[in-house]
Amino acid sequence: MKNQVKPRTLAGTVELLPNDQIIFNQMIDKIRKAYESFGFLPVDTPIIELSEILLAKAGGETEKQIYRFNKGDNDLSLRFDLTVPLAKYVSMYQNDLAFPFKRYQIGKVYRGERPQKCRFREFYQCDVDVISDKLDMMSDAEMVNVIYETFQSLDLAKFTICINNRKILNGLFEYLEISDKKVEVLRLIDKIDKIGENAMKQELEKIGINQKKIDKICDFIRMTGNTEEKIAKLKQMKIENKEFSEGLAELEKVTKYVKSFGIPDDNFRIDLKIARGLDYYTGTVYETFFDEYRNLGSVCSGGRYDNLTEYYTDRKFQGVGISIGLTRLFAQLKEMNLIKESNQAIAKVLVVPMTEKETDFALKVAQILRQNQINTDIYSNFYKDMKAKLKYADKLNIPYVCIIGEDEIKEEVVMLKNMKEKKQEKVRVEEMMKIISK
Amino acid sequence: MKNQVKPRTLAGTVELLPNDQIIFNQMIDKIRKAYESFGFLPVDTPIIELSEILLAKAGGETEKQIYRFNKGDNDLSLRFDLTVPLAKYVSMYQNDLAFPFKRYQIGKVYRGERPQKCRFREFYQCDVDVISDKLDMMSDAEMVNVIYETFQSLDLAKFTICINNRKILNGLFEYLEISDKKVEVLRLIDKIDKIGENAMKQELEKIGINQKKIDKICDFIRMTGNTEEKIAKLKQMKIENKEFSEGLAELEKVTKYVKSFGIPDDNFRIDLKIARGLDYYTGTVYETFFDEYRNLGSVCSGGRYDNLTEYYTDRKFQGVGISIGLTRLFAQLKEMNLIKESNQAIAKVLVVPMTEKETDFALKVAQILRQNQINTDIYSNFYKDMKAKLKYADKLNIPYVCIIGEDEIKEEVVMLKNMKEKKQEKVRVEEMMKIISK
Repeated sequence: MKNQVKPRTLAGTVELLPNDQIIFNQMIDKIRKAYESFGFLPVDTPIIELSEILLAKAGGETEKQIYRFNKGDNDLSLRFDLTVPLAKYVSMYQNDLAFPFKRYQIGKVYRGERPQKCRFREFYQCDVDVISDKLDMMSDAEMVNVIYETFQSLDLAKFTICINNRKILNGLFEYLEISDKKVEVLRLIDKIDKIGENAMKQELEKIGINQKKIDKICDFIRMTGNTEEKIAKLKQMKIENKEFSEGLAELEKVTKYVKSFGIPDDNFRIDLKIARGLDYYTGTVYETFFDEYRNLGSVCSGGRYDNLTEYYTDRKFQGVGISIGLTRLFAQLKEMNLIKESNQAIAKVLVVPMTEKETDFALKVAQILRQNQINTDIYSNFYKDMKAKLKYADKLNIPYVCIIGEDEIKEEVVMLKNMKEKKQEKVRVEEMMKIISK
Repeated sequence: MKNQVKPRTLAGTVELLPNDQIIFNQMIDKIRKAYESFGFLPVDTPIIELSEILLAKAGGETEKQIYRFNKGDNDLSLRFDLTVPLAKYVSMYQNDLAFPFKRYQIGKVYRGERPQKCRFREFYQCDVDVISDKLDMMSDAEMVNVIYETFQSLDLAKFTICINNRKILNGLFEYLEISDKKVEVLRLIDKIDKIGENAMKQELEKIGINQKKIDKICDFIRMTGNTEEKIAKLKQMKIENKEFSEGLAELEKVTKYVKSFGIPDDNFRIDLKIARGLDYYTGTVYETFFDEYRNLGSVCSGGRYDNLTEYYTDRKFQGVGISIGLTRLFAQLKEMNLIKESNQAIAKVLVVPMTEKETDFALKVAQILRQNQINTDIYSNFYKDMKAKLKYADKLNIPYVCIIGEDEIKEEVVMLKNMKEKKQEKVRVEEMMKIISK
């Protein structure tokens, strides 16, 4: 007897049972297909990188949470997002890439957080970004389109893509003469959904914003109306500093393109309270909500940034991108029973020879099925009884079982059992393929 | 100016340029499709695990090579293969899984080796395994079929799947009364392709095997003939110990099933010198070679094992599986110019509005193309000239460029440029879709 270890998985990391893994993989497939439909190119950077690279922009939470270790002479870390590796990649291969560089990356990232519900130490991010020396607003609008097509194809729940522009908020703060406090104010606006408007007001007061200005901020971020009306109201405000004007012009252009893309009004909205916590956003910012499950928070977010590669190269690159935190989203969906396709299977049919004598014929049937693009499992453990074999098919959600016994071979047919309808009939192999392919 | 870091990637890890990444991903897609065609279920275990779990079976190279580190109270490691995580997974979820449990996993594994040509610290493994309390030889034969279908669909080079059975070798050693040296002898047989037969003989002599026995070993592993002839010769040897008889019976059964599966004789062979270095194999072993590039070594290997989960649970599980080391294979293929599909693209067409005025129409055309399952990129940076736009399409291997100017809109057509044939023609949108979809 060997010394045994209790088998267990690190808290905050995920492994799914096969039936859930199938659904998770289908989500990844749909996201990838949507991203590729816009021509985004795949990139797959290493998970381990030199710490010096990943921590070039050092600071705060990142350094605390990063998994960092030495091996040989190397000080290494696990990537904590896909943006820093992108910055490195663009800097390294700038002479080999075609710009605008449109890339997607779907992969795991690592954060040494204290594990809580729906907070993970290892989780999938699904990112798209466009990078170039200079990018016009079409790219910002395209991100809305990418989010729209992706969530349409995921078909999870009714969703709204909300956008704002950081420059508009910065312009407002300049107008209100509170630019010196803009980081704190942005942070508080960002928290409004969590803490509520009253708490936000109190916090704003605490950092020294006067009541009149607080009211102005609240009126501003609560602005009502459809997209055109909000643009009109923003123009009427006659805030004439450069930041505000630029932001408003950008926002107007993005909304115009979004209309051209044909995004329904129901799925798109200007929301002036969207700030995004991350400090590197400089223009358009995005958040996406499920209308009936706003409590989940944003399920797809991102924004425009001005200088992606500043820690690696002097050449300046602008970018705009969005990200889906898929591991968290999947966990939330599971918890709320929002996953529709619950009985997916890999194999469409299970071929079962009754005894070893029928194996030869059964293997040939399985081969014909596979040649016709039908995923086919074969149950070969003869010592098990038929009940065990059907239970296997049932557990794997395999919709059809093809039973082959002596009689069937004589009659040149198979016994095809429809597992859902619990009916079986003798059919020829060609018929079976038609039935299964339906 | 920020403090800059020279952008670079850790030696022994890989990141590809997009055109190569597309081809790499296509290979993964093909492997996954082939694995799923047999009904193998997807599993995705974490890359970070508790060291106690990964090192339950401690020893030698693994402990030296593993990436291990502490974070908080946890002693963690990066997985170095997909087999140990599988053993843990099966042990943990044995009551939730349906057996035989057929799973595939495609993912990165980590080994802190000194980086050399085609040796990697981070690399993809593509594994399939079948696990159950008891498995018959059909599962061993199915592995041959899986390898065959996978390499057929990869379409890289002519290949031969070679099998052997460890029990036959063990039985031979018992017959030659050298069982006490079987580990060293197996290791030396395993090295014959690298060091040559003469060196192997010398090494065998050094460990104290006499000349007569060395000749017998050499005669044995050089045995000629087709599959049936080798089986017949093995029977004629009249070695009657239990190991040998069992191994021979297993090998015969596997070859019989392989025939039923319809694997061509050209792609399958018994090779009695295949031993596989890993100590946990107990029956059938597999190696796969490109006939014209045998120097690459085995491109897909595996075998049967008796007790997968011994370090985690008392319940015994048998298994049989194979693995493709895809990162290494891809690097070898690149080096030898064996990658056929070199100009793959994500987008099938690049839509180019001549000026901002045509954007609205261009966006609508792009949407129609995407709705018809045609991946469509749109070039939006108006300040670039047409030459830059065509160069972009060229660099990304995009086969068609759809140019939209004032005239085209008036005439309700687009200018479709075939990038390969360097021809362009005005066509209606519906015609364009037909041309591109061809």
